[in-house]
Order: sequence, then structure tokens, then C-alpha cells
Amino acid sequence: MSPFDQKKELILREIGETSEAQPDASPKGTIDVLCLPLINTINAHPDMVTTSLCLGRVSVFLEGIKQNSQIGAKGNEGRWLFVTHEPKELDDWHKLIDFSYNTEASIQENTRYILYKFEPLILHVKCRDLKTANLLFSTAMSCGFRETGIGSNNIVGIRILIKLDVPIGLLQDGKFVSLVSPEYLKTITVLSHERFKENFRKMDQLQSSITNMGVVKEDVVETKEQRRERKIREGMERREHVLKEKERKRIEKAAKEASETQN
Amino acid sequence: MSPFDQKKELILREIGETSEAQPDASPKGTIDVLCLPLINTINAHPDMVTTSLCLGRVSVFLEGIKQNSQIGAKGNEGRWLFVTHEPKELDDWHKLIDFSYNTEASIQENTRYILYKFEPLILHVKCRDLKTANLLFSTAMSCGFRETGIGSNNIVGIRILIKLDVPIGLLQDGKFVSLVSPEYLKTITVLSHERFKENFRKMDQLQSSITNMGVVKEDVVETKEQRRERKIREGMERREHVLKEKERKRIEKAAKEASETQN
Repeated sequence: MSPFDQKKELILREIGETSEAQPDASPKGTIDVLCLPLINTINAHPDMVTTSLCLGRVSVFLEGIKQNSQIGAKGNEGRWLFVTHEPKELDDWHKLIDFSYNTEASIQENTRYILYKFEPLILHVKCRDLKTANLLFSTAMSCGFRETGIGSNNIVGIRILIKLDVPIGLLQDGKFVSLVSPEYLKTITVLSHERFKENFRKMDQLQSSITNMGVVKEDVVETKEQRRERKIREGMERREHVLKEKERKRIEKAAKEASETQN
Repeated sequence: MSPFDQKKELILREIGETSEAQPDASPKGTIDVLCLPLINTINAHPDMVTTSLCLGRVSVFLEGIKQNSQIGAKGNEGRWLFVTHEPKELDDWHKLIDFSYNTEASIQENTRYILYKFEPLILHVKCRDLKTANLLFSTAMSCGFRETGIGSNNIVGIRILIKLDVPIGLLQDGKFVSLVSPEYLKTITVLSHERFKENFRKMDQLQSSITNMGVVKEDVVETKEQRRERKIREGMERREHVLKEKERKRIEKAAKEASETQN
């Protein structure tokens, strides 16, 4: 078994075993059921395997305690106030955070901001070889995933720019202060729904393009049908080869026996 | 001359010729003087040439007339209200736009939003071969350009996530309405300055890493010093070879003359 096939088998086994009792390394710990169709489509291809996938999400993050105006500081008490991958959990998110509203609150150099983000689909796919990585790259680019690129070990990072990145508030005397009105928070919620829709439309487009992507065989891209035909042809050739080998051995054996008899 | 060297020569000639009288294909039409140190560093490397570069910018964009809640619609009367690549031009940008302020303005399905964006450094570098592309990829990744990837034709897209993507207003009866307070617009200006700073810090880091990157020679990365030594060695070898050839031809000629004399 090739190193790629070993790696793929391992990943598929992990995906199969992941559950709430046995979480994986992601913040959520399990694979979102919404991800499965795309993951399954990719893993059905003989030369690809998914190594990470996030379907897109909305998050509200409180920056950590910072020095020298670090941006979006993760460590040092930085924490998520809200995260969701599902549009239906999005409405009224701002009511879950105990905001006071002050559109004129003053800021300082090390103010800890509250950042609202929409982040789109991002996935990493390990390919058997560079040819397959190149094919997946152009497939994703043609679906509008313009930030896609190939990294080391034939891993393709598939990315698209559908974003919101809005500083909505800050921490003041241990309290969450919104720098924008409640109406504005509702507006970015509406805009996030639009982005979720666009994101899932793009995801479907990508999935259907990958389904039809074909397999690279000796520098030529093969469709599913061509692959099927090749597999049948190769099977027949193998069968013929085995039969010929049997026949050759039979003749050799007979010749050897005849020669031994003469001696 | 290899196709890569031809392409590189062409690009370098274009860069040399670009001026306000002879603009290039970018919105600005000329290469920003701030870009030149990074461009020159990359193009000094024998196996790389820059194909596009944007140093980072702040832009304020009015979406075009849209159907089906298209996001950030470019065409159909979409237009920039403000763009700058230079921090010193950033202050008071919002005074250049004739805003009225209404933090409770109502939105509709096809509302044309005004989007404020900070976009970081992005550059594309064509490499002579995949080995150089891989080396540049890991150099950029190690500087924190985590969205970097290799595309077709050994072109490396170098990207980083330092962003702001804020819907700040909308078009209502032909007028620009801000959905946020003037204080909020000042706050995102301060945050953009921080991002510019971080962006230029990352750019300097990238530039110094590329300066020290070395050259891939038969699968081994060569430092500048090693390259210099190799070039000297190769030059001496070539010189020796030429001298030997001359000597060989001289002997051959003498032998031929001797043989002709004998005949």
C-alpha cells in the first residue's frame, strides 16, 4: 500500500470513529453533519482525502489582554463570546451577550475589542500526486475559490473571500460595550445570512465540480466513465496475463518432466 | 534563453518603462514607489519574478445596483468612494464623503451598502521551477503568510489575513447614509492604522527572509555565499575547459599540418 493510501485509510478510520465520546482536534470535536456530503464526495475520489474542513461560521471574539496594540490577540484571556456554523442559530445572537450600548465610547492603545466575523468555507485536501493537486486547484479556481493554492505535500487549501470583519465593541471595566446600535447588529446579522447563502451556493458548486472532476492517469484527465472502462480493460489484461503465465508454467513443467524422463 | 528568462526579461522591461504617460494594467496605472524595495529584492533572485503586487490598502466601496442580494456587486454603478495605499492619506477620509448619520436607517433586500475594507499585502511571484516555488512557499509561511499557496505555472500567491471588512452605510434616495457614528468611523481609522503597521512589519519580515532565501540547485538550497562560490568555481571550470579546448585544437591543427606535410 502506498504512503498516500495508508494516510487516507487512517484519516477515513478517524472520521468513522469520531464521536462526542472520542472527539477530534477541532474546537467542536466532532464532524458537523452538514460537512459530510462534501467530505464523502472528496474521499470517494481515489486520489484525494480531506485533512480539514470548516463549512463557514459566524464568530464573536473578545481579544485577549494585549501589549503594543496586537491585533485580535488570541491568548491571554481572549475568548469566543459566540460561535455558530448554522444560519438557524444566528438570529438574536446579540441578545446572548450582555451589551451596553455607547456609540461614543473612547478607545485606548491597548483596548480589547470585540470582533464580529463571518468566515467562509475553508478546506484542505491531500492529493496523491501533484497532477491531481493541479487538477483540484483549477477545479476550485473555476468555481470562484480564488484564494486557493497548493501547499507542501500536495495539500490543496481551498479558499474564497466571503467575509465580514467588524469591530463591534470593546471591554470597559469588565463590561461589554457595543460601539454600534442594536439596529446595526441586526443589519450585520442580515448580511451574514446573505453570506451564508452565497457560501453554501459556492459549496454546492464546488461539490458538483469535484464529483465530475475525473482522475489523472498518465497526464490525461479521465472521466468516471473512462476510469470504469480502463479498470475493466486493466482487469481483463491482468486476467489474460495470469492465464498466459499459467500456460507458460504448464509448458515449462511439461518440458522439464519430458527432459527428466529422457535422462 | 529559457521561457522563464524571456518572461522575466519582458516583465522587468515593463516595470522599467511604466510611468504616468505609459500606465500598466493596475487601477493606479503605475508602480507605487513603496513597492520597489520588495519588488527589487524578489527580482534580484535569479529564479523569481513578481507578476503582481498590492502593498495593502483601505477602500470604501459603494455596491452596484443588485439583483438577488448579490454581495459587494462591482458592476452596474458600483464605485469606489475612497482608496488609499498610504497611511498618511487615511486620516479624515470620512470627511471626504458627504455622509448623513442615521444608526437606525432601515435596510431592504437590494440595499446598496457602503463597505469599508482594509486589505493586506498580496503578491504573486512566478518561479522558474516547482522547487523554487516550494521554497518561496515555505519562506512565506514561516513569516506568517498563512494563506499562501502555489497556483498554476509555478506562480506563488503570497497572502495574509490582516483584515477589516465593515459595512458602514448605505445609499438612500441617492444620498450616503452612515449606519454608524462618526466616532465609530474614527475608531476603524485607528484600527486601520494598526493594521497598516502590522502589514508593513510583516512585509519587512518577508523581504528580509526572501533576501536570505538562497537558490535551489539540484535539490539543495544554496545560500548567497555558496552561490557566489559556486559561480566562481563554475567560471574557473569553464575557463579551464576553454583553455583545454584551445590546446586540443592547437595540437590537432599541428598534427593535421604535420600529416599534410608528410603527404
